[in-house]
Amino acid sequence: MRVTAYATPAAGRPLAPTTIERRDVGPDDVLIAIEYAGICHSDIHTVNGDWGPQPFPVVPGHEIVGVVAEVGADVTTHRVGDRVGVGCMVDSCGECANCRNGDEQYCLAGMVPTYAGTDRDGTTTQGGYSTHVVVDAGFVLRVPDGIDPAAAAPLLCAGITTYSPLRRWGAGPGRRVAVVGLGGLGHVAVKLAAAMGAEVTVLSQSLKKQEDGLRLGATHYAATSDPDTFARLAGRFDLIVNTVSAPIDLDAHLSLLAVDGALVNVGAPAEPLSLHAMSLIGGRRTYAGSMIGGIAETQEMLDFCGEHGIGAEVEVIPAERVNEAYERVLASDVRYRFVIDTATLR
Amino acid sequence: MRVTAYATPAAGRPLAPTTIERRDVGPDDVLIAIEYAGICHSDIHTVNGDWGPQPFPVVPGHEIVGVVAEVGADVTTHRVGDRVGVGCMVDSCGECANCRNGDEQYCLAGMVPTYAGTDRDGTTTQGGYSTHVVVDAGFVLRVPDGIDPAAAAPLLCAGITTYSPLRRWGAGPGRRVAVVGLGGLGHVAVKLAAAMGAEVTVLSQSLKKQEDGLRLGATHYAATSDPDTFARLAGRFDLIVNTVSAPIDLDAHLSLLAVDGALVNVGAPAEPLSLHAMSLIGGRRTYAGSMIGGIAETQEMLDFCGEHGIGAEVEVIPAERVNEAYERVLASDVRYRFVIDTATLR
Repeated sequence: MRVTAYATPAAGRPLAPTTIERRDVGPDDVLIAIEYAGICHSDIHTVNGDWGPQPFPVVPGHEIVGVVAEVGADVTTHRVGDRVGVGCMVDSCGECANCRNGDEQYCLAGMVPTYAGTDRDGTTTQGGYSTHVVVDAGFVLRVPDGIDPAAAAPLLCAGITTYSPLRRWGAGPGRRVAVVGLGGLGHVAVKLAAAMGAEVTVLSQSLKKQEDGLRLGATHYAATSDPDTFARLAGRFDLIVNTVSAPIDLDAHLSLLAVDGALVNVGAPAEPLSLHAMSLIGGRRTYAGSMIGGIAETQEMLDFCGEHGIGAEVEVIPAERVNEAYERVLASDVRYRFVIDTATLR
Repeated sequence: MRVTAYATPAAGRPLAPTTIERRDVGPDDVLIAIEYAGICHSDIHTVNGDWGPQPFPVVPGHEIVGVVAEVGADVTTHRVGDRVGVGCMVDSCGECANCRNGDEQYCLAGMVPTYAGTDRDGTTTQGGYSTHVVVDAGFVLRVPDGIDPAAAAPLLCAGITTYSPLRRWGAGPGRRVAVVGLGGLGHVAVKLAAAMGAEVTVLSQSLKKQEDGLRLGATHYAATSDPDTFARLAGRFDLIVNTVSAPIDLDAHLSLLAVDGALVNVGAPAEPLSLHAMSLIGGRRTYAGSMIGGIAETQEMLDFCGEHGIGAEVEVIPAERVNEAYERVLASDVRYRFVIDTATLR
């Protein structure tokens, strides 16, 4: 099946319309007619070659929402017409300790990324900036009715990336959670943490987005460019989720944690970070990292968002504006996630 | 009450015999006739001025074991003749959230260190290289009969420092624990982790102490100077306790952790450490720190050591050899802890 898509022909080149081949629907596969595809900052890193050589042409997109158009003979979990989503991975070995434990993202054989990865049949995966995609049913999520489908798309990456550490490190009533950075990931983190019942503070470079932060569910908002912030909030938080991909002052941020508090990075700066062991020892603190989440946990996140009416704040664009959107993402000029309306590709 | 002690008169100067004043036994106090005082590396850092200016003369020693000689009118927890111990702290506010939670070492008002600290009455605390000490009963531990008193002394610092993270991060049957460094802390960590039922590996610069490591309870021993070690043991451990006070290659050591694994520093290098966030994110790993433990947990550790017949491996010396012992500690020429026989002070 040949389908329309937007692809990057080579590192750093603009995306352009093209056609790509999707595999036949196998017995365990689901064919999805894509409605929306979110633009994640990692799409831009990948096609710019920031993360090493890629199998160009690359069709990015791992925040996919659509409707089931066809299912394979053995698929019992999804039916034609269901609204579904696909996130950052489309397969894994299913047999290693991590897969068996529901941590497919840490598959010991290597999970198959939704695009620019090598599928188990040896072909290169192509992502969601496209009209259709064929995905193993085990990696297809149900999108609850309560979420606008365009606003649901970013949940497949930004949502699970922040939901997983919030859950794992106990965001909930009586807990003080800070979110560093109010961008694509951060604004979802604020909504999720608030819905979990935590007291949420946004730590942003400036107070520019303060009104937004409070509207999204934060009760406090502080500027990290103000040194007084670190003195004032010392020892305050149980959990800090750092969504920023640039290096931050780790010692300063760790000083904001209470005893047993955790600072969890979900953004991944390429540069090494520096910290003093005493920043951890002095409060039995934790510096941790977290990468998306497993499939069952992603479904749990979507169900949670359905119950709480949580979607991303999105600006829906036609596919032809994707290059312009990339520029604006790099300039932090989006509140808070671009989503491609893939109907514009048809 | 004037008692004999060994004190450092000024930063970097040799210790020499002197006499110091101990306070009268108050209603909540215990007078301890000290039998043994361990020599901890931090004693040396302190008197050398590595950790900033100190209130000289300083009597070091926070690994104290002795016998109760007198108790205050209100003391019900200890009786004359009991064998007891004192560790790194002798008081705390008792009222803050951390104290109420049993984490006196993280007292928000600041715990009172056993020496070179300011006591709650404004005097300077003096440590265990001495014949007697007066301590609030709440900070006096019971030393079980099953442990040789000289071998028990180092448990008050080296023991609790390693016991606490081993317990907190779940060392036990079915768990793989690595201990970095086989010194004063590390050798106790190996004994404790093995007694908890974990599979223990020592990660040491060389294989020089391999025989000791295996005798103490490790089932594996690997040299970190051999690059093959990191390839061979990648992803193997659930917990790594780092007892080394010099900077280590964090990224390399983190790569030895399984998903959800934790590397916990109990040594505190003064230099900043460098790591890549991806070393954490790529396996939902944790880099944490831990400082001694609370009083109740220290008692739990001593009881555990009593049940399992665990003491430190010690070389008992007369007080007059303390300066020579310091030199040998700095040269790593001790297996594995010096303990001063304070009878030699009388």
